[in-house]
Amino acid sequence: MTTSTPMGFGRMHRKEDARFIRGRGQYVDDVQLPGMLHGAILRSPHAHARILSVDTSAAEALPGVKAVITGETLAGLGLAWMPTLSKDVQAVLATDKVRFQGQEVAFVVAEDRYIARDALELIEVDYEPLPSVIDARTALAEAAPVIRDDLDGKKDNHIFDWEAGDRAHTEAIFERAEVRVSQDMLYPRVHPAPLETCGALADFDKVTGKLTVWCPTQAPHAHRTLYAMVAGLPEHKIRVISPDIGGGFGGKVGIYPGYVCAIVGSIVTGKPVKWMEDRSENLMSTAFARDYHMTGEIAATQDGRVQAIRVKVLADHGAFNGTAQPTKFPAGFFHVFSGSYDIETAHCEVTGVYSNKAPGGVAYACSFRITEAVYLVERLMDVLAYELGMDPAELRMKNLLRADQFPYTSPTGWEYDSGDYPRTLALAMEMAGYDKLRAEQAERRANGDRRLMGIGLSFFTEAVGAGPRKHMDILGLGMADGAELRVHPTGKAVLRVSCQSQGQGHETTFAQIVAEELGISPDDVDVVHGDTDQTPFGLGTYGSRSTPVSGAAAAMVTRKVRDRAKLVASAMLEVAPDDLEWTKGRWSVKGDPKHGATIQEIALASHGAVELPEGVEGHLDATCVYNPPNLTYPFGAYICVVDVDPDTGQVDVRRFIAVDDCGVRINPMIVEGQIHGGLADGIGMALMQLMAFDEDGNHLGASFMDYLLPTAVECPSWELGETVTPSPHHPIGAKGVGESATVGSPAAVVNAVLDALKPYGIRHADMPLTPSNVWRAIQGRPIRTDLAIT
Amino acid sequence: MTTSTPMGFGRMHRKEDARFIRGRGQYVDDVQLPGMLHGAILRSPHAHARILSVDTSAAEALPGVKAVITGETLAGLGLAWMPTLSKDVQAVLATDKVRFQGQEVAFVVAEDRYIARDALELIEVDYEPLPSVIDARTALAEAAPVIRDDLDGKKDNHIFDWEAGDRAHTEAIFERAEVRVSQDMLYPRVHPAPLETCGALADFDKVTGKLTVWCPTQAPHAHRTLYAMVAGLPEHKIRVISPDIGGGFGGKVGIYPGYVCAIVGSIVTGKPVKWMEDRSENLMSTAFARDYHMTGEIAATQDGRVQAIRVKVLADHGAFNGTAQPTKFPAGFFHVFSGSYDIETAHCEVTGVYSNKAPGGVAYACSFRITEAVYLVERLMDVLAYELGMDPAELRMKNLLRADQFPYTSPTGWEYDSGDYPRTLALAMEMAGYDKLRAEQAERRANGDRRLMGIGLSFFTEAVGAGPRKHMDILGLGMADGAELRVHPTGKAVLRVSCQSQGQGHETTFAQIVAEELGISPDDVDVVHGDTDQTPFGLGTYGSRSTPVSGAAAAMVTRKVRDRAKLVASAMLEVAPDDLEWTKGRWSVKGDPKHGATIQEIALASHGAVELPEGVEGHLDATCVYNPPNLTYPFGAYICVVDVDPDTGQVDVRRFIAVDDCGVRINPMIVEGQIHGGLADGIGMALMQLMAFDEDGNHLGASFMDYLLPTAVECPSWELGETVTPSPHHPIGAKGVGESATVGSPAAVVNAVLDALKPYGIRHADMPLTPSNVWRAIQGRPIRTDLAIT
Repeated sequence: MTTSTPMGFGRMHRKEDARFIRGRGQYVDDVQLPGMLHGAILRSPHAHARILSVDTSAAEALPGVKAVITGETLAGLGLAWMPTLSKDVQAVLATDKVRFQGQEVAFVVAEDRYIARDALELIEVDYEPLPSVIDARTALAEAAPVIRDDLDGKKDNHIFDWEAGDRAHTEAIFERAEVRVSQDMLYPRVHPAPLETCGALADFDKVTGKLTVWCPTQAPHAHRTLYAMVAGLPEHKIRVISPDIGGGFGGKVGIYPGYVCAIVGSIVTGKPVKWMEDRSENLMSTAFARDYHMTGEIAATQDGRVQAIRVKVLADHGAFNGTAQPTKFPAGFFHVFSGSYDIETAHCEVTGVYSNKAPGGVAYACSFRITEAVYLVERLMDVLAYELGMDPAELRMKNLLRADQFPYTSPTGWEYDSGDYPRTLALAMEMAGYDKLRAEQAERRANGDRRLMGIGLSFFTEAVGAGPRKHMDILGLGMADGAELRVHPTGKAVLRVSCQSQGQGHETTFAQIVAEELGISPDDVDVVHGDTDQTPFGLGTYGSRSTPVSGAAAAMVTRKVRDRAKLVASAMLEVAPDDLEWTKGRWSVKGDPKHGATIQEIALASHGAVELPEGVEGHLDATCVYNPPNLTYPFGAYICVVDVDPDTGQVDVRRFIAVDDCGVRINPMIVEGQIHGGLADGIGMALMQLMAFDEDGNHLGASFMDYLLPTAVECPSWELGETVTPSPHHPIGAKGVGESATVGSPAAVVNAVLDALKPYGIRHADMPLTPSNVWRAIQGRPIRTDLAIT
Repeated sequence: MTTSTPMGFGRMHRKEDARFIRGRGQYVDDVQLPGMLHGAILRSPHAHARILSVDTSAAEALPGVKAVITGETLAGLGLAWMPTLSKDVQAVLATDKVRFQGQEVAFVVAEDRYIARDALELIEVDYEPLPSVIDARTALAEAAPVIRDDLDGKKDNHIFDWEAGDRAHTEAIFERAEVRVSQDMLYPRVHPAPLETCGALADFDKVTGKLTVWCPTQAPHAHRTLYAMVAGLPEHKIRVISPDIGGGFGGKVGIYPGYVCAIVGSIVTGKPVKWMEDRSENLMSTAFARDYHMTGEIAATQDGRVQAIRVKVLADHGAFNGTAQPTKFPAGFFHVFSGSYDIETAHCEVTGVYSNKAPGGVAYACSFRITEAVYLVERLMDVLAYELGMDPAELRMKNLLRADQFPYTSPTGWEYDSGDYPRTLALAMEMAGYDKLRAEQAERRANGDRRLMGIGLSFFTEAVGAGPRKHMDILGLGMADGAELRVHPTGKAVLRVSCQSQGQGHETTFAQIVAEELGISPDDVDVVHGDTDQTPFGLGTYGSRSTPVSGAAAAMVTRKVRDRAKLVASAMLEVAPDDLEWTKGRWSVKGDPKHGATIQEIALASHGAVELPEGVEGHLDATCVYNPPNLTYPFGAYICVVDVDPDTGQVDVRRFIAVDDCGVRINPMIVEGQIHGGLADGIGMALMQLMAFDEDGNHLGASFMDYLLPTAVECPSWELGETVTPSPHHPIGAKGVGESATVGSPAAVVNAVLDALKPYGIRHADMPLTPSNVWRAIQGRPIRTDLAIT
């Protein structure tokens, strides 16, 4: 799979794996500070209740307990509510009411974690239970209890209305359309479930006034801004250090009440305070994703030409609108709901509501709701195919955007940068042997084979690399990323970037970018990230933006270094800069290639050996800020083949063909690893995962016994292919790939299962397609041979 | 003494003192790492001996001992010899021979420091003593033992010959001069004696291959380069962290064998290894300063016009030429030996030799030998005054360079940047009430007062701020310093500089520079230094170069930020950049001052709120490298008044008037603090300090019982004055002041004592003028009234 170290782009082993495979990664929970104390959180057993009293006296009396902090303590400090990245506020510790099961009520600081946990049992809270809103579809009813009565004048559970597209044009098309199909569907509430839970270690130094917070965050600089807002400290007195992170998937962008509690605990006790979530806390209380009730409609011609799409969404954000949302688009990048197709017009409305569930809306590997949008449109395409009796591949091929349409402006005004969609779908079909698969399916159906074979497709376009100011900001801050490159006297380099790896291999990929641009070995480039004191400002890693934005900054800053090196080389070689040409790693005289200097020689000279011309500074260091002119639009075609056992409802994913086009691939091995992970993730969502609640808001299982993650057993041997359509506006033509497979795969799996179930006349069933859900769906339904199209 | 926080330059309390006065400074010995081991060094009892055998078996068997490292161990690793900053090599642990008393022979690594020390006692070393060279004047004798026979083909103890000036011209002047005086004098071997001794904590990570070394160093980046050379690691795999430092004074520029031992110890054991010198080790083995045997000659007219100076120096560098030396000038900045005077020509020869003493040549608060040069010329001026029967002030005033002579090219070709010397001397004389002092002296002498009153002057010119490539490089690296300024969204700033504070208050002074240039409060600027991973390249703090070089870089990088802010303000205010003007902290429209934006508003806008024109990057961060076009030349006039008790030889420093001109003063309180310290230092050297050896090379007292430091008891209440002649080529006109008083004061004190002893006909006596030395000098000498001039 890997070759020897290249000079730049290409397959190479991940540099960070040297420590990971030896168990030498350093995660927040590995950080030990002298005199460190430990915190634990008391959580609400009710989904909605008034707090009548909190008695902490017994807990405070427990030997080893250093402090017990309640909402009242925090209110006294003006810290009871914290800002969220979505311009909402969230209770740090509940004061008046609890609003979801698992909400934070009190925080114990003790000498060790065991004492802190024991002390929780000694806190007496008197609750008066209240009626709750669990199903978002009831949230806006007249009789619904008002969840966020803490917000000034708030009399209902409505958060926002957002729409995009041309309503009148869309309605007009629908009125005269030959074919109209409509489908309700739910993208269920799911959880990013990272390997490492959340947590924070806070250390406030009363003497210097400096607060250091170690926490696993995808966005250290955004965390610093939020802590500054929470703690009232200026940013330069706050250092956020994010060491190794065991997965983020969007769940580690925002801050959580426990982080603030650790900070307050450190301020109150004068000692470092560590708080780490356990698994059930993570699954119960940490922000969730999806929970979109969607109605999608397609208007088309009889021969399958899609003309318009119309969408209505009810978005359940839980009790607090807690996580990263682009402030300009409360429904995020759901904007691209018209998918990868050449559609005349489209219109979409999203309404956000509060419910008595843990905060939702996390951008879980989805570039802010693109997962929901892609699932919706890809499911709708299959519903249309079902109704038209067309092959879903044929329907897609007929409607996909053509290469000559790029750059393409979508019905909602977004500009897709580049693509050749039919080529990518054709490659996937060729790799899958699509026609042979359909033939096999027809033959098996004809033979009455009990194992139901299904073939599912999806074609996705993502909008990633947030992004230009016109598309989003967070906390009023734009999305430009800084990069700094320092070149040592011997030509070894250190790159500092604002984005933060949670396992994506930045230390390797970014080193390869610098190596490629500078003509040195990636081994000679160290990458620093995850420490706000060490790195330039930028808003972090999510929405697949590391390579599109920070990666671009890395390339640009390296080019600046190269330009500086040119001036030094000019002094060294005593020729005009214009007479020099760059060949990998070396400036040499045009027409006299032997007369030149390597970047290492130039680096040394720039540190002392050469008199530089007036106005030319020494050294080769440079900084750069990259403000992307547009998003990048990776895309791909996925084909999934399943076998369903109608007796048990069990789905066996037999094959999965994924052709991704993410532009230029810096390290194909890492790209493929990202895709593998996302595909597995998609199988999990399609077939297994649901964060379920009973009608009182009780969480039905916050453990991996109930919330299932796919393992190697559920995954086939992935079949990957690629096309390469560079992004025209990105310095190295890369588009980002971190979320592609998570975005694209659920629809392919669901479409495959529903294709298998087609003989039963089943057009749609909601995720997760667990064995029991599948089994229930087909009960009492005879096989309908009239639907068994090839 | 202090006023409230200014917006830029001015008196303000030192920011770092908040932690120092609370005992919260963090020095190397305060750093604790999990699993840390401790090292101790076995040292040679002989000044010169052959090592016949080293038996470590008993030490290795002691429970708790983890490793015993000898020169042989190191030789096996290729690490027995380390490079020095002077292009010499120094034994890390002796292999063949020991070459000075206290030389490092073995290194024990153990669980704690006590076990390590106990184990030293168990190491058996068999030495064969050899004859030694202790007096440098015997080093070049035919019969002298060759100390450095480890060097290829080395057959004597000669290190270098260096000369400057015009020999023929000088000889011609001397031949026809009306007056010629000659004086031998010794600048004795002294020691910087910092409050914190040396030491290192090394942590080598076998998995990442990264070596982190915490050590108190004045030059973290130079240390990194040296460790790279020693350990064979590339620079980007080495991080040098210099936390708070308890004084450097030139003694913490180079590396010491213990540092390398700690590194090897960590590599061998796989654990962090800390080694900290104790006081007697520091005084016995760590690099020394001075040890210059000088012969100075002056040619003058009968009426006191100095025409030429001729100097011969024998420089004793000890057994290894260990510390920072500009590679272009092995005798460093002794170059300015013609002092502050308008002299037609001059010539100087310096010969460096090895001796069986600890490594010498440290640039102890002297800009590389300027202390010796100033002492020489100022003592010579008094000797000339003595011979001519002139008042030393009158003689100096007659010969000082005049304001209209600047920029002035010295007889050795160095260009003094700016000055008005007579004005400065006149101010000092006025402050001192010079004429009244002379009248008092005459009256007391006439009255036969037993307490001998002396008045001593010195006028010094320093060459600091190393420096331009033409003046020096170290390890082939130039002296350009980098600075990086990061501006947070709310306008708080972080400055990163390569230089390193050892107590000079960089965190305050540099914050004031940024504050002054940016129009914000120094409280809103944090300064980062002392960590090679965090700071740009530069060669550190010595030779008073922090403000002249890194300070200039700080000012220049802030101006770059201001220029970037102008472009952002132009976009915000929708006017052309040329229509904007800067008034402290604000860009506003020319002629419409209400229409403007503060730097805070611009910072926030640059991070997101504003669409920037094509080609304008976001954020305001900038980097800069400052390569000084020339050295800066601070100067000053000092007057010392002493009373000498002829019965005991005790010298009482009654008054000390110091008028310094260091150009623009950023924080006058810090400048004055620096001067206070240097003046005390000068009293110590003039009156107390000598690193003495017996003829076998045994160190005569390596403790503060024998090597005396001046205390408040020995110091008068300093009387400070200032003139301000900005450096014309420095961005803020500052010249540096860190060493001025150490350089200028010894001659003033010695001249005062010899002025007091003049009635005995004593023209010269060597430092230190301890009570016993003074007493001995005047024994058997009657008071000579013919010499009691004025």
